[in-house]
Amino acid sequence: MPTRRERANAIRALAMDAVQRAKSGHPGAPMGMADIAEVLWRDHMRHDPAAPDWADRDRFVLSNGHGSMLLYALLHLTGYDVPLQALKDFRQLHARTAGHPEYGELPGIETTTGPLGQGFTNAVGMALAEKILAARFNRDGFDVVDHRTWVFLGDGCLMEGISHEAASFAGTHRLGKLICFYDDNGISIDGKVAGWFTDDTPKRFEAYGWHVVPDVDGHDADAIAAAVHQALADGRPSLLCCKTEIGFGAPNKAGTAGAHGAPLGDEEIALARKQLGWPHAPFDIPDAIRAEWDARRQGGQRRAEWLGLFDGYRQAHPDLAAAFERAQAGDLPAELDAALLEFARSSQRDRVAIASRQASKAALDIIGPKLPELLGGSADLTGSNGTLWKGATMVTPDTPDAHYIYWGVREFGMTAACNGIALHGGLIPFGGTFLTFQDYARNAVRLAALMGVRNILVYTHDSLALGEDGPTHQPVEHLAVLRMTPGLHTWRPCDQVETAFAWRAALARRRAPTALILSRQKLACPERTDAQVELIARGGYVLLDAVGPPACVIVATGSEVEIAVAAAKAMNQDGSAVRVVSIPCLEMFLQQDAAYREQVLPPNVPRLVVEAAHPAPWWRIAGDRGRVLGVDRFGLSGPGDEVMAEYGFTAENVAEVARELI
Amino acid sequence: MPTRRERANAIRALAMDAVQRAKSGHPGAPMGMADIAEVLWRDHMRHDPAAPDWADRDRFVLSNGHGSMLLYALLHLTGYDVPLQALKDFRQLHARTAGHPEYGELPGIETTTGPLGQGFTNAVGMALAEKILAARFNRDGFDVVDHRTWVFLGDGCLMEGISHEAASFAGTHRLGKLICFYDDNGISIDGKVAGWFTDDTPKRFEAYGWHVVPDVDGHDADAIAAAVHQALADGRPSLLCCKTEIGFGAPNKAGTAGAHGAPLGDEEIALARKQLGWPHAPFDIPDAIRAEWDARRQGGQRRAEWLGLFDGYRQAHPDLAAAFERAQAGDLPAELDAALLEFARSSQRDRVAIASRQASKAALDIIGPKLPELLGGSADLTGSNGTLWKGATMVTPDTPDAHYIYWGVREFGMTAACNGIALHGGLIPFGGTFLTFQDYARNAVRLAALMGVRNILVYTHDSLALGEDGPTHQPVEHLAVLRMTPGLHTWRPCDQVETAFAWRAALARRRAPTALILSRQKLACPERTDAQVELIARGGYVLLDAVGPPACVIVATGSEVEIAVAAAKAMNQDGSAVRVVSIPCLEMFLQQDAAYREQVLPPNVPRLVVEAAHPAPWWRIAGDRGRVLGVDRFGLSGPGDEVMAEYGFTAENVAEVARELI
Repeated sequence: MPTRRERANAIRALAMDAVQRAKSGHPGAPMGMADIAEVLWRDHMRHDPAAPDWADRDRFVLSNGHGSMLLYALLHLTGYDVPLQALKDFRQLHARTAGHPEYGELPGIETTTGPLGQGFTNAVGMALAEKILAARFNRDGFDVVDHRTWVFLGDGCLMEGISHEAASFAGTHRLGKLICFYDDNGISIDGKVAGWFTDDTPKRFEAYGWHVVPDVDGHDADAIAAAVHQALADGRPSLLCCKTEIGFGAPNKAGTAGAHGAPLGDEEIALARKQLGWPHAPFDIPDAIRAEWDARRQGGQRRAEWLGLFDGYRQAHPDLAAAFERAQAGDLPAELDAALLEFARSSQRDRVAIASRQASKAALDIIGPKLPELLGGSADLTGSNGTLWKGATMVTPDTPDAHYIYWGVREFGMTAACNGIALHGGLIPFGGTFLTFQDYARNAVRLAALMGVRNILVYTHDSLALGEDGPTHQPVEHLAVLRMTPGLHTWRPCDQVETAFAWRAALARRRAPTALILSRQKLACPERTDAQVELIARGGYVLLDAVGPPACVIVATGSEVEIAVAAAKAMNQDGSAVRVVSIPCLEMFLQQDAAYREQVLPPNVPRLVVEAAHPAPWWRIAGDRGRVLGVDRFGLSGPGDEVMAEYGFTAENVAEVARELI
Repeated sequence: MPTRRERANAIRALAMDAVQRAKSGHPGAPMGMADIAEVLWRDHMRHDPAAPDWADRDRFVLSNGHGSMLLYALLHLTGYDVPLQALKDFRQLHARTAGHPEYGELPGIETTTGPLGQGFTNAVGMALAEKILAARFNRDGFDVVDHRTWVFLGDGCLMEGISHEAASFAGTHRLGKLICFYDDNGISIDGKVAGWFTDDTPKRFEAYGWHVVPDVDGHDADAIAAAVHQALADGRPSLLCCKTEIGFGAPNKAGTAGAHGAPLGDEEIALARKQLGWPHAPFDIPDAIRAEWDARRQGGQRRAEWLGLFDGYRQAHPDLAAAFERAQAGDLPAELDAALLEFARSSQRDRVAIASRQASKAALDIIGPKLPELLGGSADLTGSNGTLWKGATMVTPDTPDAHYIYWGVREFGMTAACNGIALHGGLIPFGGTFLTFQDYARNAVRLAALMGVRNILVYTHDSLALGEDGPTHQPVEHLAVLRMTPGLHTWRPCDQVETAFAWRAALARRRAPTALILSRQKLACPERTDAQVELIARGGYVLLDAVGPPACVIVATGSEVEIAVAAAKAMNQDGSAVRVVSIPCLEMFLQQDAAYREQVLPPNVPRLVVEAAHPAPWWRIAGDRGRVLGVDRFGLSGPGDEVMAEYGFTAENVAEVARELI
C-alpha cells in the first residue's frame, strides 16, 4: 500500500511537471503543502467529486492561489472531471487550468484566488453562511447543513491587511467550522520573510479569539492529523501553523524563493524525483496511488447518506425543505418581483421625494420580509447607508439565524466575505458603505465581477453633494471605475421609483454583481406615465420630452436628473425643444437594441450629459458635438448644495451649457 | 491657574460649539480625547507654531480625522495662524477648516485624514523617515534629526486592514519614536463595538513587537502622563490604550454613538457646559486659559536652539548640512537631470530593447547613486518590479541608513507609508507592485493626489501581455482609474528612452504623485531623431510620420507602440499615409498648447487609439470618427503574446481596423 508520503509525492510530481511543461507557474507551495493536503483530503474532506455542487459539501479554499497546481492535482486525483490532459495544458490559452484557480473553470474550484488574503476572507464568508443556514434550517435529527470550510494560506495572505479584517470578524463570530492551515515556510517572493514579517502570528490570532495550534510539523502526517483533531474539537475558528519547506523535495531550491514562482528546471526536477523516491515519468501516476486518492466511492456514499437525510427532512419539514432548495438554486420567491413593481408604481403615484439611500431602505422594507435569504449589512454605516430594514435582526455569535451583519469598519473584508457568502449559496448578500470607500474594497469588487457572483454593493453618499465631509469623502472617479469593471452593472437611480427598479435588477442578476449608487440628499420624484415607469428596466429612457423633435438631449443620472429636468423645463418654456433622458444604468441601456437606443438618443441631436462624477464613461455618449458636465477635480468641504453649485450643477448652468450646444 | 481639565475643556467647548454652528461634524472624538491632547500638546509636543515647516518638529497625526475640530482647536490655541474666525467657519465652503483635516489648508496639518487607518500608516512612514534621516545625518553632538511622531487613532482605524500592515511593519522596524494613543471609547458609528470588534488589541500589538500600555484612564492626566513616560523610555513603537468616553461632558450623549457624528444640539450643549463647569460663551476662551495653551514662546525657543545646533553642524559638516537642506527643500541634485537626458539619448543611440520594467531598473541605476534621498521599495515583488538598483542596500531595524525597503505583501501599507515619508520631507519614496494590485492601495493613491505629494508609484506587469498569471493579475480598468485621479500623472513608456523621460518627469513633480506603468515583456526601441527624443517630455509626439498629410493617425502607448509602428509601416508600404503618435503621458500631452496638440493630432484626420486597457480614457481622443482598440472584458491565462493576439493586439489587426477608418 502506498505510504502517505508517496500519495503526497503524486501532488509534488504533478505540480513540478506541469509547471515545467508550461514554462511558468509556482511549484513551491504545492510541494510544500502536499503532506498537509494529503491528510486533509484523504481523511477529512467531505465531498463528492461527481457532485461538486452538493450543498452540504465541505468547502476548500486555496487562498495562496498561485499554488493552483496543488488544487488541480487534488481535483484530478480525487476524481473530479479534470482529466490529465487539463494538467498538461496548465496555463495554456483557453485551458481550464489557468495560472490561478478561476471559479467556474473547473469543478471543485470554490472561489477565484490569487489576489492574496481574499480567499481566506471568502472562506470566512462561507463559514458564516454555513453557520447561519445551519441555525436556520437544521432541526432535531436533521442536520442538513453541517459542513466545514478548510483554508490553505501563506505568508502573503497573512501580511495583507484584509487578513486582519477577516480574522477579527471570524473570531468575533466564533466560526468554529473554519479551519485554516498556515503554510509557514518562511519564504516570500523577496526571500526570507524574517526581514519584513516578524509577527508572532499565533499570538495575533489568539488576540482575535481563535484557537491556534502553533509549531505543527507540516511534513509529519501524524502531527498534522493531531492538529486537525484539536481543531475539530474546538468551538473557535482554528489556525494550524504548519512549518513547511517551500519546494519540499527539490534538493537545491527547497527552502528558497527560487522554488516559489518559476519552473524548477529539468535538472532539479530529476534530482527531486531521486530525493522523493518518485521514479515515475512526468504525469504518470501509478494505479495503486491513483486508487488511494480516488474519492468518488466514499464521496458518493456520503452524499447518498445526505440525500437520504434530506428526503426525511423534506417529509418532516416540507416548507423548510422547499425554502432551502429554492434558495440553494438561487431562485427568487415568486411574489417578490410583483411586489417590487407595485412598490415602484405606488412610489410614482405618491411622488415620494426622499434621498435615494432612504428610498433604498424603503425598498428593503418590501424585499426583506419576502426574501429570507437576504443577508444585509454595512461597514459601520448602517444608519447612513439605510441598509437595515424593518424587523431585520442582527447576526451574533449566539443568534446566527438573523439577517443583518454589523461588519465593523471593514469594507474590504465585508465585500470579500460577501463574495464568499454568495459563492457558498443559499444566501444573497449585500453590504453598504460610502461610495468613496469602494476604494478600500476595490479588488473584491473586481473579483465579484470576474467570478460572476450575486453580491450587491450598496454605495451611498454618491457625489460632491454629500457636502461637509469634504474631498476625502466625495467620490469623483468611483462611478467610472465601477462602470469599467467588466460584468458589473451600476445603477444610479434618480428617485424612489428608479431605486425600486435598481433593486429589482440587482436581485434578478443571479450570476453577477450590481452596484447601487445612492444619494445622501433628498431627491424629487419626476412625473412619469405608466409606460415610462416600465421603461426604467431598460436602463435608460426618455423622461421628459420636447414638443416635436428635440434640438438637444440632456442625459442625466441620479441626483442630476432633477437639475436636468428643471433646466429643460425652463428652456422649453423659452421655446427650445429639449429632451431629458434618464440613464440610471448605462450598461443595461447599452444592451438594448439599436432601434431603442436611437429612439432615446436620436443620432443627430447634440447631447449634454450631466453627472457629478468623472466624465470619462460618457464621452462616447456625448460625442464630438456634445458635452459632459462632470467633475475632474477633487471636491470641497461645504454644504452640499453650495458645493454642487460651485461645480456647475445647477439648473441655470445646465441650461446655459445646453444652449451652447443648440 | 487653570487646571488641566479646564484647559482640556477649552477644546471640548470649541469642538461642540463649532460643530453646532456648522450644523454638522463630529464632536465626540475631540471631547473624548481632549484630556489626552492636553497632556501631549502641553507637555511633550516639540513644535513651533510660527514655523510649521521646521524640519525637526514633532509630527502629530489625527488618524481619526473626523475629529478635525480637536486638531483645529489645538492649532488655534497653541498659536498657529488659525484665527478664531476659521473655527467659526468650520465646514463652510472655501473655509480652511474643512470637515476633515486637509493637508495644505492650515499650517500644522501634517496629513489629510478621514479615510480610516491611513493617518496611522502615514505616521509609520514619517517615523521611518525620521529614523533613516537620523541615522544618515546625525553626528556626534549633532542630533539634528531627533523628533517623535504622535498619533491619535480610534476603533475605526484599528478595524481597518491597513492598521495590520502598518503596525506589523512598524514593529519589524522597531520605530521607537512612534507613539500612538488609542481612543478606546468602545463606540463606533453603529453603536457599541462589542458586537463587531472584540480583538484583544493590546495582545495583538504585542504580537507585532510593540510596547503596549493597556488600560490607561484617558481622562486622568496623571495616568496619561505616566503612560507617555513609559513610551518615551521604550525602544519599540508604543500603543497607549486609553479608555475614554466619547463626547465626554455631554450628560445625555456621552458614551453613545449619538455623540459621534452630529451636533449635540443646543440643549445638550448647555447641559454639557454645566457639567464641565465651562460657563463661557461659544468661542469665548478666557485669557488665562489662552495664555496656558500658547506654545509660541516655548516653541520659538526650542526651534532657536535647534537652529543654533544646525549652525554648528553646518560648520562641522558642511557637506552633510547642504545635502540635508537640499533634500528638505525638495530640490534635486543639479547633475541628475542631465544624466537622465544623456541616459535617454544613449538608450536611443543603442536602440536598447528590453522590458520597460528593466528599463526602469536601468534608469534607477543612474538615478540612485546621484539621488541619496531616493527611498525605493516593493511590496514583495522586488525582482519582478525591477525596483532594486545596483548598490542599493536594505533598510533594516539595525541599518536604517539605507535606500531600499522590503515592504512585504502590503500594497496599501506601502503606499500610505510612502505618502507619510513624502510628507515628512527629506526623502523621495517610490514603491512597486503589479498594476492590478494598485486596487489594494487605491485610496492611498487617491490621497497622494489629493495631498499633492511626491510619491512615485511603480506598476509593472501592465496588461494582458503578462500572460499566464491570468485575469486576476491582468489589469483592465486600472490605467483608466489612474488617469481619472485628479492631479496624478500616469506614464506608460514604450521603451527605455520614454522610460527615462518618465522617471525624469516623476522626480521633477515636486508636489504631485506620478504612476509609472511598465511592461513585463520585452519592447523594441523605435527609431527617433534627436528632436523626437526631446518631444517625449511633452507627453505625446509624432513618432512615425507618413509621407505627406496623414490619412489616419494611430495613437498608442507602451507595448502597443511597437504594434502600431509595425502596422503603420506595413500600411505606408501599401500606399496608405499613416502616422503613429506615441502618448506616454496623456495628462502631460493635454497640458500642451492647442497648436502643438493639433500639430500632433490634426483635427480632421481619423484616429485609432491602441492600448491594451479599458478604452474610456481615449474616447474623446478618438472622437466620433475614430476608434479605440482596447479591452473591456477580463483577460485570460496563457502565453502573453497569444493572449494579446486573442484580444486583437497584433500589427495585422491594427492595420485592418485602421484601414476601416480611412
